[in-house]
Amino acid sequence: MTNGSNGQSAGAGALLAILRDGRARTRGELAELTGMSRSTVSQRLDGLIDRHWVVAGEGSISSGGRPAAVFAFNEGARVVLAADLGATHARLAVVDLGMTVRAERAMELPVDRGPEPTLERVVAAFRELLATGGYDPAQVCGIGVGLPGPVEHASGRPVNPPIMPGWHGFGVPAWLGERLGVPPAGPGRVLVDNDVNVMALGEHWAARPAVDHLIFIKMGTGIGCGIITGGRLHRGAQGAAGDVGHIRVPASDAPCRCGNSGCLEAVAGGASMAAVLREAGIEAQGGRDVVTLMRAGDLRATWLVRQAGREVGTVMASIVNFFNPSVIVIGGDIAEAGEQVLAGVREAIYSRSLPLATQHLGIRASRLRDRSGVIGAAVMVVEDVLAPAAIDQAVT
Amino acid sequence: MTNGSNGQSAGAGALLAILRDGRARTRGELAELTGMSRSTVSQRLDGLIDRHWVVAGEGSISSGGRPAAVFAFNEGARVVLAADLGATHARLAVVDLGMTVRAERAMELPVDRGPEPTLERVVAAFRELLATGGYDPAQVCGIGVGLPGPVEHASGRPVNPPIMPGWHGFGVPAWLGERLGVPPAGPGRVLVDNDVNVMALGEHWAARPAVDHLIFIKMGTGIGCGIITGGRLHRGAQGAAGDVGHIRVPASDAPCRCGNSGCLEAVAGGASMAAVLREAGIEAQGGRDVVTLMRAGDLRATWLVRQAGREVGTVMASIVNFFNPSVIVIGGDIAEAGEQVLAGVREAIYSRSLPLATQHLGIRASRLRDRSGVIGAAVMVVEDVLAPAAIDQAVT
Repeated sequence: MTNGSNGQSAGAGALLAILRDGRARTRGELAELTGMSRSTVSQRLDGLIDRHWVVAGEGSISSGGRPAAVFAFNEGARVVLAADLGATHARLAVVDLGMTVRAERAMELPVDRGPEPTLERVVAAFRELLATGGYDPAQVCGIGVGLPGPVEHASGRPVNPPIMPGWHGFGVPAWLGERLGVPPAGPGRVLVDNDVNVMALGEHWAARPAVDHLIFIKMGTGIGCGIITGGRLHRGAQGAAGDVGHIRVPASDAPCRCGNSGCLEAVAGGASMAAVLREAGIEAQGGRDVVTLMRAGDLRATWLVRQAGREVGTVMASIVNFFNPSVIVIGGDIAEAGEQVLAGVREAIYSRSLPLATQHLGIRASRLRDRSGVIGAAVMVVEDVLAPAAIDQAVT
Repeated sequence: MTNGSNGQSAGAGALLAILRDGRARTRGELAELTGMSRSTVSQRLDGLIDRHWVVAGEGSISSGGRPAAVFAFNEGARVVLAADLGATHARLAVVDLGMTVRAERAMELPVDRGPEPTLERVVAAFRELLATGGYDPAQVCGIGVGLPGPVEHASGRPVNPPIMPGWHGFGVPAWLGERLGVPPAGPGRVLVDNDVNVMALGEHWAARPAVDHLIFIKMGTGIGCGIITGGRLHRGAQGAAGDVGHIRVPASDAPCRCGNSGCLEAVAGGASMAAVLREAGIEAQGGRDVVTLMRAGDLRATWLVRQAGREVGTVMASIVNFFNPSVIVIGGDIAEAGEQVLAGVREAIYSRSLPLATQHLGIRASRLRDRSGVIGAAVMVVEDVLAPAAIDQAVT
């Protein structure tokens, strides 16, 4: 957003960026905030109103007597189709521009059947959600998708995803866009990213505006994290940033599915915890079962969850010294264990990280819980659609 | 830099940003690159020439016959005063806008005598360098300083620096600016940062333009790193990012000056290595002595240096998985051991990080060596002075 005092490049996009905080404002307030003249403000507002991004209303406060007109962001102007695909389950939602979920559906959907069978069901479910909610497909301004594997974000293509056979290089944006009437490129398009990155975007949005540097850790079958610095996703040189599940933990030689041993995932991942319980004769298929057993009072499951928190905390203690985040958010199936897992994470981080780095560090459970993914997928699209430059171009 | 096809906000700053690559260009080329009209380009160039940022010359290639005028960035238009202060030594330099060191001086300067006695010597040395080189103080467009401790970058004040008694909260920018005739705020001002951040800026500049995500590790008396992501310094929530010296290493309980034990610095820092040699009856005061002994063939010193590389590599292996950098640069006194230390770092990283993250990862010694700090301090100031918005404001 550029709203310098000279107002040189402050256009419709800058006005909309201001109004996105949800507060209605008068022409005078907007002129003052942007440095634009009142007549330019009026002209830009007309363009935004024409396209339904902004609605005009009557304010209650006025110095004269006649109430001044106020202008507000219209969160319902468009909707985003958001999909959070996990290994076996998916959550799909219709989300408005204010990130409110207008309609949603959770369903079993194993991604290992390949891209087309999986995405066909996604398309059918999206059409159903739109029809049931009475949305015109023309209101859809973009599609956001989180996938459980590495994704080349620029093209939206999965890159050798370990648990998604058949998906490598598949052009998700074009395939989905064609069937749902959304252009695969340009503002209002199909954007795809790794599930943990998308969840980090969702949690960052939920924690706004104070948090600049956030780490979201998903503790599920595997363990991975999404990194936000200066308010933006850090994807790294090969888009591989956040792959903390295979960091070596001290004093462990548990074999890992990656081919190494002693990985964090091999001691604190949901799959490995369930395997430990099965060896002890307790029925458990994955992280969800471990948490269910813990809730039922099983001491082994409780110890495993607590210890998983400590192991994650030990790895994160080093990362806190390196990265100095403002907040660490724990999500995923294991995070449903709540304080049992958070206590272990906190214990390890506070005993091993530097005082300056932990002084104001927040360590907390996901606020959006199982909606982190769909909200994050919507954030990814909405930030793209409402980027000031995109709005300037659309409203001239 | 904004140089969209509409040319709306492409001003003098955008032209200068293009010319900073060192290649001279014609009006026509600049108009094409920015989308500005030729007359706007001419007008902006006149402003830049008036202020000496750009020089005009005669090109050799022309379609007609008469050579077209070409315009080039004038690297000598201004100079920056750059200071890299270590615990006991300082390097001061006069650097031009193309980051060429025009004059420099290295000297003993212990920072533990407090800010005023230290900075008085810095001011005297800067005045001498300017006088000797025949520079007019009016040519100085800013001062950049790296300090061996935590610094609140926005204010330029050190924050509880462990080895700098008396410096906590000292207003370095105002103090230096007043004595050297440089305003403490605004473009062309005094900018101060932690030494490792400044070195990371220098190495990033030297590695440009391909490197987006760089980690610079200083292996000296202590160990710390500077982090660049998306081309910008990542300072973290409390400005404490990069403090890897106190990450716990496995299988060590060596006491550390921080009060904990098993810290990376306590096994791989120059001070701790020298202490190990002294216990064995070998005279060594710090990291430089260890490297000198290694070069003279001392086997204990060689083993220590190699092992220090492995310990740093083990810690960095986790950080590579988390951050996925494009390049890791090793600098500081211990890095002078060259391949002996790099081999240990590489060995540990390649055996423990994920293949995707190490596939294209460069691990190399500092290119600028003991000039990383002064070049980085100059980069910090020049990027500020030549920021397109600052130039647009100066040249209207």
